[in-house]
Amino acid sequence: MSDTSKDYWIGFDLGGTKMLAVVFDDDFKPLGKARKKTKGNEGMEAGLKRINNVIKDALEDAKISASEVKGLGIGCPGPLDLKKKSIRSAPNLGWENVPIGKSIESEFGFPVTVANDVDAGVFGEYKFGAGKGARCVVGIFPGTGIGGGCVYEGKLFLGGNCTCMEIGHIPVQPDGPIDGAGNHGSLESVASRLTIAGHSALAAYRGQAPHLLEKAGTDISDIRSGAIAHAVEKGDKMIKEIVEDACEYLAVSVVTIVHLMAPDVIVFGGGLIEAMEDIMLPTIKKRAYNRILPSMRDVYQLAAAKLGDDAGVMGAAALAQQSVRERANA
Amino acid sequence: MSDTSKDYWIGFDLGGTKMLAVVFDDDFKPLGKARKKTKGNEGMEAGLKRINNVIKDALEDAKISASEVKGLGIGCPGPLDLKKKSIRSAPNLGWENVPIGKSIESEFGFPVTVANDVDAGVFGEYKFGAGKGARCVVGIFPGTGIGGGCVYEGKLFLGGNCTCMEIGHIPVQPDGPIDGAGNHGSLESVASRLTIAGHSALAAYRGQAPHLLEKAGTDISDIRSGAIAHAVEKGDKMIKEIVEDACEYLAVSVVTIVHLMAPDVIVFGGGLIEAMEDIMLPTIKKRAYNRILPSMRDVYQLAAAKLGDDAGVMGAAALAQQSVRERANA
Repeated sequence: MSDTSKDYWIGFDLGGTKMLAVVFDDDFKPLGKARKKTKGNEGMEAGLKRINNVIKDALEDAKISASEVKGLGIGCPGPLDLKKKSIRSAPNLGWENVPIGKSIESEFGFPVTVANDVDAGVFGEYKFGAGKGARCVVGIFPGTGIGGGCVYEGKLFLGGNCTCMEIGHIPVQPDGPIDGAGNHGSLESVASRLTIAGHSALAAYRGQAPHLLEKAGTDISDIRSGAIAHAVEKGDKMIKEIVEDACEYLAVSVVTIVHLMAPDVIVFGGGLIEAMEDIMLPTIKKRAYNRILPSMRDVYQLAAAKLGDDAGVMGAAALAQQSVRERANA
Repeated sequence: MSDTSKDYWIGFDLGGTKMLAVVFDDDFKPLGKARKKTKGNEGMEAGLKRINNVIKDALEDAKISASEVKGLGIGCPGPLDLKKKSIRSAPNLGWENVPIGKSIESEFGFPVTVANDVDAGVFGEYKFGAGKGARCVVGIFPGTGIGGGCVYEGKLFLGGNCTCMEIGHIPVQPDGPIDGAGNHGSLESVASRLTIAGHSALAAYRGQAPHLLEKAGTDISDIRSGAIAHAVEKGDKMIKEIVEDACEYLAVSVVTIVHLMAPDVIVFGGGLIEAMEDIMLPTIKKRAYNRILPSMRDVYQLAAAKLGDDAGVMGAAALAQQSVRERANA
């Protein structure tokens, strides 16, 4: 093995509202970083330029030159084309067919590894966080939708079209409410943070959640994870029940995943879980228990994500390292 | 690579009612075989002896000596301990902690690879049948229960306790009927061949399925796949509807599996599918379509199993070959 002490890696997280680049050494110690607003509405060309500028700023902050970087990993939203290193479609940004890998590679010269943003986060938790070193890790992140990812025997589990683990879209309640993709009764239609916010807004409007009403009003945009957790803590029983109902469905998804993939660890992450880990995780675990075959009940651990927002950049950088090292050893 | 033209492999299928051994050459041409009734009720010791006798008979039929065999693969029911090469529990046979690998190895001297019976069948379809060469194949076999298996990048996808893809136990209908494991609304509670037989017996009893009544009566034990297919073909509309209702739920499991694993091929097999492929497969495909994200709708093929009962022995033998070759290359 060659001396890798001077290998540097960049992790990039391309979000709907902000973008973040972090430069790491070979032990994933962060050396420098930069962030900007994404501003998807300014168009794809402008966006690709902003991405390159953030990378430059992070390199400057780390005092590392591009020629010292061995690879960059970037977690992106939307369906991807991993071979072409492009984003097929990012509805949140309004961008289509985004040649993101080529754009960065032609500017800086180092190889780029493109990954789904949730996959990058789950890989981060597998390498450095709640699923560290496990043979099979599944991540579930309830937010506006519900994202998922899986690391199996050290590598991302990938689908035929290079994307999978769309946990938010598995059916859990036939004839349930409609979700963002137009389907009825998907997991995200009944258990996303957005769905919880919707039910909570109704409760607040009806006068059944005074603490939530005082803190956040009845506009769904204002009912974020912190406000929901606050209301539960202060004693809004109806909000607690709404959260527990969502946990019931998250438990159904756990039952499905355990029976299909029997992972060693299921990691739950995202703002909602961070704000209410103590309520949500035991509720999910308990409600899943009796619906799992006895021989499979104890094969998995339920864990809260440990890295928060760092998971995405760390995972993306680690994916770049894995990809570059694999090619070197091939 | 060494000369493998003289490598022989044995595939063994241990079923609830019968056991089958087939001797193959290195190209998986069958050279000889033997079968016996399993007779689980005569006890585990007697059963292990019968297994060894069937292997001897198959070797004799193939005119091959045990010393020429490079490995044997055996597909077994029940939760397994793959490391110990044992069956933890086979309720159908009434056997517990069955040291099946050691029993065969100590008798014949060649290495034994133990696999879940459904996994062996799916591996057979991946190597030689409907999922030949695909990067990711999922098999679904609706019978008394509903078994599943997955081959991912050339190898069986395995869970933490060495077993997974328990597709029959994923929840598809909250508050649905009870299944054999005591769970409500699992896939097998609403879509197994046994469930279809149960609903069909009621229809026959009520006078709504004259062809089924004439052919098979109202005893669930007699309402096998052939009788169900016959009734549909002859015009028992109620039976057709019962089969289509089951397809609706099988479609839900397809939607779940496509979103989670995005396999290239989903293979449906077993007697029920064999008897009604033309009705069931298009119904499942059609009912799944609109519930799958547009970007994932066309990534998978739905296919009927091609090998029938041969899948299990061929897959088991191929698993033995893979395992022996891997150890040799390690």
